[in-house]
Amino acid sequence: MAIDGRGEEEEDLPQIQPLLEIQNHVQLRRSTSNATSQVAIVGSNVCPVESLDYELIENDFFKQDWRSRDRVQIFQYIFMKWILCLIIGILAGLVGFFNNLAVENVAGMKFVITSNMMLEHRLLKIWAAAGSGIPEVKAYLNGVDAPGILSKRTLFVKIIGSITAVSSSLNVGKAGPMVHTGACIAALLGQGGSKKYGLTWRWLRFFKNDRDRRDLVTCGSAAGIAAAFRAPVGGVLFAFEEMASWWRSALLWRAFFTTAVVAIVLRALIDICNSGKCGLFGKGGLIMYDVTSEHVSYHLSDVPAVLLLGVIGGILGSFYNFILQKVLRIYNLINEKGHAYKIFLACLISIFTSCCLFLLPWLASCRPCPADRSEECPTIGRSGNYKKFQCPPGHYNDLASLFFNTNDDAIRNLFSKNTDSEFQPLSIIIFFVTCYFLGILSYGVVAPSGLFVPVIVTGAGYGRLVGMLLDTHSNLNHGLFAVLGSASLLGGSMRMTVSLCVILLELTNNLLLLPLMMLVLLVSKTVADTFNGNIYDLIMKLKGLPYLETHAEPYMRQLSVSDVVTGPLQVFNGIEKVSNIVHILKTTRHNGFPVIDEPPVSDSPLLHGLILRTHLILLLKKKSFLPTHVPTGIDATKLFSADDFAKRGSGNSDKIEDIELTVEDMEMFVDLHPFTNASPYTVVETMSLAKALILFREVGLRHLLVVPKGSSISPVVGILTRHDFMAEHILGLHPSLVRSRWKRLRFRPHGIVKIFRASQANLRAYI
Amino acid sequence: MAIDGRGEEEEDLPQIQPLLEIQNHVQLRRSTSNATSQVAIVGSNVCPVESLDYELIENDFFKQDWRSRDRVQIFQYIFMKWILCLIIGILAGLVGFFNNLAVENVAGMKFVITSNMMLEHRLLKIWAAAGSGIPEVKAYLNGVDAPGILSKRTLFVKIIGSITAVSSSLNVGKAGPMVHTGACIAALLGQGGSKKYGLTWRWLRFFKNDRDRRDLVTCGSAAGIAAAFRAPVGGVLFAFEEMASWWRSALLWRAFFTTAVVAIVLRALIDICNSGKCGLFGKGGLIMYDVTSEHVSYHLSDVPAVLLLGVIGGILGSFYNFILQKVLRIYNLINEKGHAYKIFLACLISIFTSCCLFLLPWLASCRPCPADRSEECPTIGRSGNYKKFQCPPGHYNDLASLFFNTNDDAIRNLFSKNTDSEFQPLSIIIFFVTCYFLGILSYGVVAPSGLFVPVIVTGAGYGRLVGMLLDTHSNLNHGLFAVLGSASLLGGSMRMTVSLCVILLELTNNLLLLPLMMLVLLVSKTVADTFNGNIYDLIMKLKGLPYLETHAEPYMRQLSVSDVVTGPLQVFNGIEKVSNIVHILKTTRHNGFPVIDEPPVSDSPLLHGLILRTHLILLLKKKSFLPTHVPTGIDATKLFSADDFAKRGSGNSDKIEDIELTVEDMEMFVDLHPFTNASPYTVVETMSLAKALILFREVGLRHLLVVPKGSSISPVVGILTRHDFMAEHILGLHPSLVRSRWKRLRFRPHGIVKIFRASQANLRAYI
Repeated sequence: MAIDGRGEEEEDLPQIQPLLEIQNHVQLRRSTSNATSQVAIVGSNVCPVESLDYELIENDFFKQDWRSRDRVQIFQYIFMKWILCLIIGILAGLVGFFNNLAVENVAGMKFVITSNMMLEHRLLKIWAAAGSGIPEVKAYLNGVDAPGILSKRTLFVKIIGSITAVSSSLNVGKAGPMVHTGACIAALLGQGGSKKYGLTWRWLRFFKNDRDRRDLVTCGSAAGIAAAFRAPVGGVLFAFEEMASWWRSALLWRAFFTTAVVAIVLRALIDICNSGKCGLFGKGGLIMYDVTSEHVSYHLSDVPAVLLLGVIGGILGSFYNFILQKVLRIYNLINEKGHAYKIFLACLISIFTSCCLFLLPWLASCRPCPADRSEECPTIGRSGNYKKFQCPPGHYNDLASLFFNTNDDAIRNLFSKNTDSEFQPLSIIIFFVTCYFLGILSYGVVAPSGLFVPVIVTGAGYGRLVGMLLDTHSNLNHGLFAVLGSASLLGGSMRMTVSLCVILLELTNNLLLLPLMMLVLLVSKTVADTFNGNIYDLIMKLKGLPYLETHAEPYMRQLSVSDVVTGPLQVFNGIEKVSNIVHILKTTRHNGFPVIDEPPVSDSPLLHGLILRTHLILLLKKKSFLPTHVPTGIDATKLFSADDFAKRGSGNSDKIEDIELTVEDMEMFVDLHPFTNASPYTVVETMSLAKALILFREVGLRHLLVVPKGSSISPVVGILTRHDFMAEHILGLHPSLVRSRWKRLRFRPHGIVKIFRASQANLRAYI
Repeated sequence: MAIDGRGEEEEDLPQIQPLLEIQNHVQLRRSTSNATSQVAIVGSNVCPVESLDYELIENDFFKQDWRSRDRVQIFQYIFMKWILCLIIGILAGLVGFFNNLAVENVAGMKFVITSNMMLEHRLLKIWAAAGSGIPEVKAYLNGVDAPGILSKRTLFVKIIGSITAVSSSLNVGKAGPMVHTGACIAALLGQGGSKKYGLTWRWLRFFKNDRDRRDLVTCGSAAGIAAAFRAPVGGVLFAFEEMASWWRSALLWRAFFTTAVVAIVLRALIDICNSGKCGLFGKGGLIMYDVTSEHVSYHLSDVPAVLLLGVIGGILGSFYNFILQKVLRIYNLINEKGHAYKIFLACLISIFTSCCLFLLPWLASCRPCPADRSEECPTIGRSGNYKKFQCPPGHYNDLASLFFNTNDDAIRNLFSKNTDSEFQPLSIIIFFVTCYFLGILSYGVVAPSGLFVPVIVTGAGYGRLVGMLLDTHSNLNHGLFAVLGSASLLGGSMRMTVSLCVILLELTNNLLLLPLMMLVLLVSKTVADTFNGNIYDLIMKLKGLPYLETHAEPYMRQLSVSDVVTGPLQVFNGIEKVSNIVHILKTTRHNGFPVIDEPPVSDSPLLHGLILRTHLILLLKKKSFLPTHVPTGIDATKLFSADDFAKRGSGNSDKIEDIELTVEDMEMFVDLHPFTNASPYTVVETMSLAKALILFREVGLRHLLVVPKGSSISPVVGILTRHDFMAEHILGLHPSLVRSRWKRLRFRPHGIVKIFRASQANLRAYI
């Protein structure tokens, strides 16, 4: 049910799969006889996903292929690769720009009309693609191909939905959806123009494989961040620190090129807008909270204040993750009950948000406009620092100034210096608490929503608050405190350091802040890591995406690969009978099969390689059969072109049930040799599971053959896939490990032991 | 001759090894019977190096070890890891600072005395550690352990030598030596205090392995760049883009921490210096060419000029690499003739440099001091923009202003804006040409020398020149042109993009330049890549360091691993006779041996794992022998502590010849099982060499076992090491490939075909 799951894309992803739908799909390589016990073990955490093939396929057929032959085609390939990056950059830049343009204009209009009923009505149309999208893209780059993660429809829904959600009252950001948008654009371009575009299609055929598509998606997600924050270097770093599971110097370069294009496109569009052609869209529309000042001065004496900011920020950040996880679980339960509940929930959150925004400013007292103001005060009918709200002339409501702006404007207000007296502590406290919880409640309700901007705005409030409390004890101005507060909360919830640091520096355009920023990020990440994990990993786990961790769990050291290989192994002969192939393909859902040459072809059973289900189905479809068991001199490869083996868009593959074969066909044979990957990666059965995981993950595998440690009847004793490395599967097979695991978990509530636990978890990540 | 090669460290590295000294050392795993043909093949390009073990050793003994056991020890380990990073950061910061302080003061003194005879005399003392050090550290991180790359002596020589060389007239930089210095500090700390420091030693024992030491060295090289350029983010990116062969998110974080410490240390020291306690050391002494301005304005119309700058910069950069390579070859030939020649060469270059610097300014005419100058003109007796040289009062010599400054001051002068009329074209042309060739001639003569700064200064001259030529056609000021010129020349010679971009941004403190900088770097790298390789790779090749490339050569696709495995394989039984072990260790230089359980211990030969030479020698030394072939119940592991297996400093290992055994000992047996790595990585003999290389490199291996594809007499048919993947070895075994390779190379001179060739090379890097 998952293979052609295009229609389900909008609703399947954010939900946890019901218990019994699990594992009866492509990735499962165990025979059905064994499946019942599996389901119970694996639990409700596995989505209907395919794995991606990131390793090079090397069968004889592909060796004949263009890559090793034709210069013109190699040139086409390289040329197209760069052109695609260029197009991704341009498109991401355009989307980012128009996204912002639309948000500013819609949000402006909204304030003029002082009603958002209209928006709630519009929200009904985008019950889709909720959440940030970053966890999905991250899982894709890890090798998980959940249907519809990167499709045309997702792209469209993300763009429209993100504009509507951000410009509605919901406290959500656009960075996450932009990353997903960039990734979708890249995936669609890599998928190769769906046969509509005559000539273009020939050139794009080179990209119909998982490796190239992954590379493009990495570039696309970098472009997304670059477009959302106008932060090209930050975008590249984000893609590599947070998103990518594989990493190469050459890819770094190409991602860099893509984000450079984004930056240039944005720059050109801003040039146009500066001449005033973009409606309500202001000069700083592409968020760039410029805090450049002639001289940001700070000294070593400011370090304790920054450390304090970091520690509290870390605690707040990890608590943010904790509550968000709980809230998303409750939402999942509600959403499962049906559409009506979903709509009700969304309306509830939306109305609650609106109420907060409209009612809370009444709590703040009116303040007189400052004498030396540089802009109109109070501002009416457009965005600005001083909102009139209910105040008499010459006064403004500082809380309304924060609430009745887009998040971007609120952040700019909070980050700006020389505004230490503009806000009163009570307003900042209300603002901080409201943002903190609204951000959590708004995430993943119905619409595409990012986490970056809500966390930045909340952190800015938190930083200002700390700045106010430390007022006389620190030389830093409140704007700087707000910047550092944002950094600490981001570090506490997202746990990236280098990329966050660079993104924030690019946003604020002040390199002198660097040492303080690094310090606060390191502290908050360290503190938060002692409590729980990265927010994207938590969400990914909640969605049941089988993400392959970088580090092995400690119990994996105690197991060898033979401990987790189960079920009868299905193998094919080098020259196999058609009926056998059909039978095995119909009765199992395995995705790869070892090919073994047996006597009389060879003296003893010899491992030839690994063949993929998709290639087998193609062979059956083309009916290139042999009459007997003996290979003829006929070159079967002439029947095929490389395009036949090209990777289709996800969910587009043929199914064995659709192939019609006569009784005569069934009695014939197929020579699998030319289509077998003759260089599969292997491990010896005594290999420790932890080391097999390193191989699986570092090289980017989909199947790993297990060979015996000495002479044996069969040259292959098993096959490992992604699911065999999942904790649920392993602990299901070895329940004694579960106990030792729970034993450890029980210690958690005790403070110091908990920190030790986290240190152990850290240790695994570091050694 | 290489194992205890400490005494040779200063002189071995920069030289090409004589033909017959090759391969008769530890890494060689072929028996001597086969060695003659090897030597002829491998040629003169292989240094006496060990490989490093970056994979986790998992034998029974280590499984009992602390990592899986004691919380306090885990805490110690993590704590120490961070403390070490802290110390590396502090030390690198201090070295960087005092390095600069010394350079500024010495250089200042030099100008006052107007003589550098003294310096030439001093140069005689540091015939050592010539060159940048970056290629060596890069090779180390790739897994090559050449003796003395990272030793105490190298560290000392680098620091003193770098100060002397930079402050002498030689046109060399300090970034390269700083990277090497940082790496040395890290390696020495990781090596664990050489038993002098009572308690500390216990804590440092965890780091006595290659993995941890590699991680520390990565952090150290990041700290080096951070200290040299005051560029913490750039330092991290440099370490990861250019230096590191393996990459993990956790390591990124730790490197980031280290550079943050460097930044804070530097900041604190500058605070102290600002109060005027640092002698001649000026405010901007830590190079930071601040080009912040209120508004750097540029438009799309400036892009063609930038593209032109990039294209020419790429050509100049690759030409720089080309000439440098030729010059280094000539130097090697001269240096091989003996010390007298070395000294003569160095004196020659030094005198030639001095002559250029003193004579060339006479070519430039005197210019009147500008009316609106902000500083004293002409400046006498201290560094400044306007040098008097031979000019009448009220005039200055612009060429002397560039030559009679440290490189840092020259760069600052060239980068500064509003100085368009300060320099005349003739002076800039002379300056550019002189710097270009002096930079090449000065590199690697005798003293530690970086390439970064000479290339930056040359590029700044080139950029100014282009700016002058385009004067009226561009809106950019000449200072900006100088910055972009530096970027283009750096991109053309070093071929990094992201890290160079960030380093330059951190140096110039202007984020608004970002899009232009990215563009110029991309263009110059692309252009330069069509001609030749990265400068560090060229130097590494010249030094014969067996660097493992990321991408496989095309011919590796055509070979399987069994095609390159040669020589008789030496294996051990699970319980082996002492005399056998001694015999094999004495007659071969292999570094790892498969351990196989044979009948009667098992029914058929079974692969147990891999044992290292060092561990075998240790077993023999401890004499934990068994009287018979039958394993007793005695736990041999009690004889050993984990410290016994700790990795020593390079060149410190025991040798088999030093172990004395009685005749009775020789008749006894050793149980190898507890000390065997039971999880070695393996490949099937039919695996393509290209894919085996991917495994070898991605997982960071030192040995790779080759197993048969079906039943065979032995469960192992061969063993692969780093040297088996070297082009020289493969092409020696398969001369037909050489021909096809040369055929390709012959096409090179023809323009367009050459570009195709490069594209193919690129292709390999990208796919």
